[in-house]
This record gives sequence, C-alpha cells and structure tokens, in this order.
Amino acid sequence: MPKYKLTIEFDGTGLVGWQRQDNGMSVQQIIEDACLIFAGHEVRLHVAGRTDAGVHALGMVAHFEMEKDIPPNKVLLAINHHVKPHRVSIVDCEYADEEFHARFSCLERSYLYRILCRPGRPALEEGRVWWTQRKLDADAMHEAAQILVGKHDFSTFRAVQCQANSPLRTLDEISVRQVGEEIHVRVRARSFLHHQVRNIVGSLELVGRGKWNKQDLQNALEAKDRAKGGQTAPAHGLYFVEAKY
Amino acid sequence: MPKYKLTIEFDGTGLVGWQRQDNGMSVQQIIEDACLIFAGHEVRLHVAGRTDAGVHALGMVAHFEMEKDIPPNKVLLAINHHVKPHRVSIVDCEYADEEFHARFSCLERSYLYRILCRPGRPALEEGRVWWTQRKLDADAMHEAAQILVGKHDFSTFRAVQCQANSPLRTLDEISVRQVGEEIHVRVRARSFLHHQVRNIVGSLELVGRGKWNKQDLQNALEAKDRAKGGQTAPAHGLYFVEAKY
Repeated sequence: MPKYKLTIEFDGTGLVGWQRQDNGMSVQQIIEDACLIFAGHEVRLHVAGRTDAGVHALGMVAHFEMEKDIPPNKVLLAINHHVKPHRVSIVDCEYADEEFHARFSCLERSYLYRILCRPGRPALEEGRVWWTQRKLDADAMHEAAQILVGKHDFSTFRAVQCQANSPLRTLDEISVRQVGEEIHVRVRARSFLHHQVRNIVGSLELVGRGKWNKQDLQNALEAKDRAKGGQTAPAHGLYFVEAKY
Repeated sequence: MPKYKLTIEFDGTGLVGWQRQDNGMSVQQIIEDACLIFAGHEVRLHVAGRTDAGVHALGMVAHFEMEKDIPPNKVLLAINHHVKPHRVSIVDCEYADEEFHARFSCLERSYLYRILCRPGRPALEEGRVWWTQRKLDADAMHEAAQILVGKHDFSTFRAVQCQANSPLRTLDEISVRQVGEEIHVRVRARSFLHHQVRNIVGSLELVGRGKWNKQDLQNALEAKDRAKGGQTAPAHGLYFVEAKY
C-alpha cells in the first residue's frame, strides 16, 4: 500500500489537540475523516508530536497508508477540500518509504513559543500569543536558558501526567529573542516530555521579569520537582514548527 | 477639552470597515461605543485612513476629544476593556496637541499587502492573506512596480466610486519582497485613492505570474482607465501599517 507523508499547518483554537478524544474535535479526526471520503476506507494517521488542546502547528508531520494509489498533489488537494471549514491545511504531501514512521523515524522536533509584551491586548494575534502587559528581558531569558541545553533530568519541567518512561531528555538548542513587541522562544530536541516547552517558558518568564535569576533556574532544574518550576505557559502561544528525519 | 491620539490594531474580518454604516459593525462604532461608556458623552473619532470592509490594521491612528481628563494609559485600558469581544485593540494612547488632526495632519501613510503562494490553503493565516496556488516572481513584480513611484495620474488604479477631487497622487515608495512562502508588497505615500493599493496589487499579480511585463504595467498606467488595470486584490490581504505626522 502506498504510504504518504503529510506536512500540516493548523490553528489549534477550539480543538482538543492532535489526538482523537471523545470530548471534542481533534486534528487527527478532522484529517482522518477527510481521508475516509476519498480513500474509501478508514485510515490511521501517525504523527511526529501529539500536541495539547490549543497548541498550533506550522509544520506538523504525519503519515498514513491507503489502498488506492493517488498522486500526492491530488491527495493534498482532496484533504484540503474535505477538511473545510476547519483551520487545518496540508501544506505538503509526498510518498514515504516503507520504513518511514512519522513518530519513530523523527530525529529532531522544534517548537516556537510566542509572548506578546505590550499594554494593549492582541487584536490580530488573539489566541496565537501569550499576552503579558509586563516588559520581559529577552537577553536575561536567553542567557539563563542556556543552562537547560544538554542532557538533563527535566522532572521540574515535566507534567505530572507525563507518561514517558524517563525524565531524561537532551535539549539541543534554546534561544530567546526579542522580535518587535514579541519574545520568541525556540527549542530543538530529539523529543520532549509532556508540557516540557510550556513549563520551561513559564519559568523563563520569571527570569524575564526579574523575579528569578539564572541561579534560580539552575536550582529549579536541579530540584527535579515540578513544584519548584514556574507556571505552565498557556497552550495558545505554542507552535510545533518542524520535524526532521 | 483634552485630545487623545490612539494607535489601533484591528482584524477587519466580518466588519464593514472603519466607517460607521447601517449595514454592519464598523471599527469606528466599536471604539466610539466603548468611549461613550467611560466618557459619559458621545465622542467622535477622526481617523488617518478609512479602510474597506475586511481590511486589517497594525497601526491605524485616530483622535478624539473628551470632557473628562483621564490619563492616556487609563484610556487605553478602558477602551480595550469595553471593545471586547471585538478584535480591536488600542496599542498606544497619548495626549495630542490642540492642532493635531489624525486625518489632516498626516504626512505619510503606509500599507502592507500579503500574498501567500503555495498549494495548501492557509490554516493559521486564513482571512489574513490573499492565497494563490501560483508561484509569483517577486523580483519581476518589484522591478515593474518602480514605474509607479513618483507623481502620476492613477486613474487606472482608482475605484470607480472614488470621491477624491484629483486622480493625481505621489507614490513615495513601493517594494515587493519574497518572505518565506509569502510576497509582501509595501507602499508609502502622503495619501491614496480609493482601492489604489488593492488595484496596484491586482496588476502586479499579473506581472508576478508572467502574464504582464513591465511595459504592460506602464501601458496600463498611461491609459488612465480603470478597465485597463488588473483585478482588485481581495481586501483581506491588506493592512494599514502606519501613519506619520
């Protein structure tokens, strides 16, 4: 059976996240339902990263197999036709090798977190950024964040409900930059724990507003205790950017 | 009476445009209604540019007068509180001089037009960009666009219903750049004719896809005839960026 690799953009607003759930609409269900129409049978999507409710994606990757062999450009158009009016779009579709698996073959995942810092609430970017009226010091956040790079026990930044076997993860890169009125936090790793990015951003925000310094972040990391970390930053500022294979 | 200068961001989706109208909600009405609540009397907003239905703004400027003297930072918070749930936000508020007029004192207005060129429809930027599946040549568009710079009779790019006394306008700058999958057209002038930016973009799109060359654009300009121009580009790709005083 032909295997297809999809690159997906979606607005997570109002969705329960990537994974199918009984309590609302998921990205997985939206795309699987669209595929069912032209495949003529149920298909199963496998994804690089299962995002939380409200989280967005610029380049999520998923794969599926189908009995018919339809050219990838036609698959892209067909899915995009049937997913309407949901804010989900296939931005690329190609044949995948037999060995390819969107989750297990993935070598690197990257996320972007956007914080808007200004007195006025967002009009155009509502639901797309974490809005704060405080000024945050991006340079201080960036400098402190560097202590998280490398292999660490990230228990402090791991959701209580995280189901991963180990709290050890290797963070390949983290950068914090001021972009106009926004602060952009970019992270890159082979894999992440549940809520890891949002929990890191919640602690970096404390650094940005001067409540924590670099040593406080170091202490939090070393405590290996979720209760010693900052808040979980809101889902709607987070974007799954890219999966590399 | 104290005079306030507002800088406004808004999402034009679903609105009839800046100006009050009987057939739907306008940005003017949303903000004037909000001001009425805390001013205790009707206020009248004057604006740098009256945008069409569906057009967005990053930094629209307007002014109004009020009997009470409330500090500008409080005015900002009060308006932003009362405009909810509309996607309108005051991003800056300051006292204005007695001589200041948002429309008549304005020395320069700038707009951005965004075209998204890719096979997949926009998910995150739906209603915020003009989506085309065609690849457009930004360099060719930029080069051709330069013939529009300077003082010209812009009748070819003027809406039939335009009420300006003269079709003469001086375009100070126009640039066309590829930004990732998008093409950004930026224009700057003291003032614009009705639909001028959207009509210019509609003709540049013909250049971008190779249907027109630079000489065709020149011929269209010299024809001084709306019927010789390209289509009017959709409102939802257009952003009022800035007003300078």
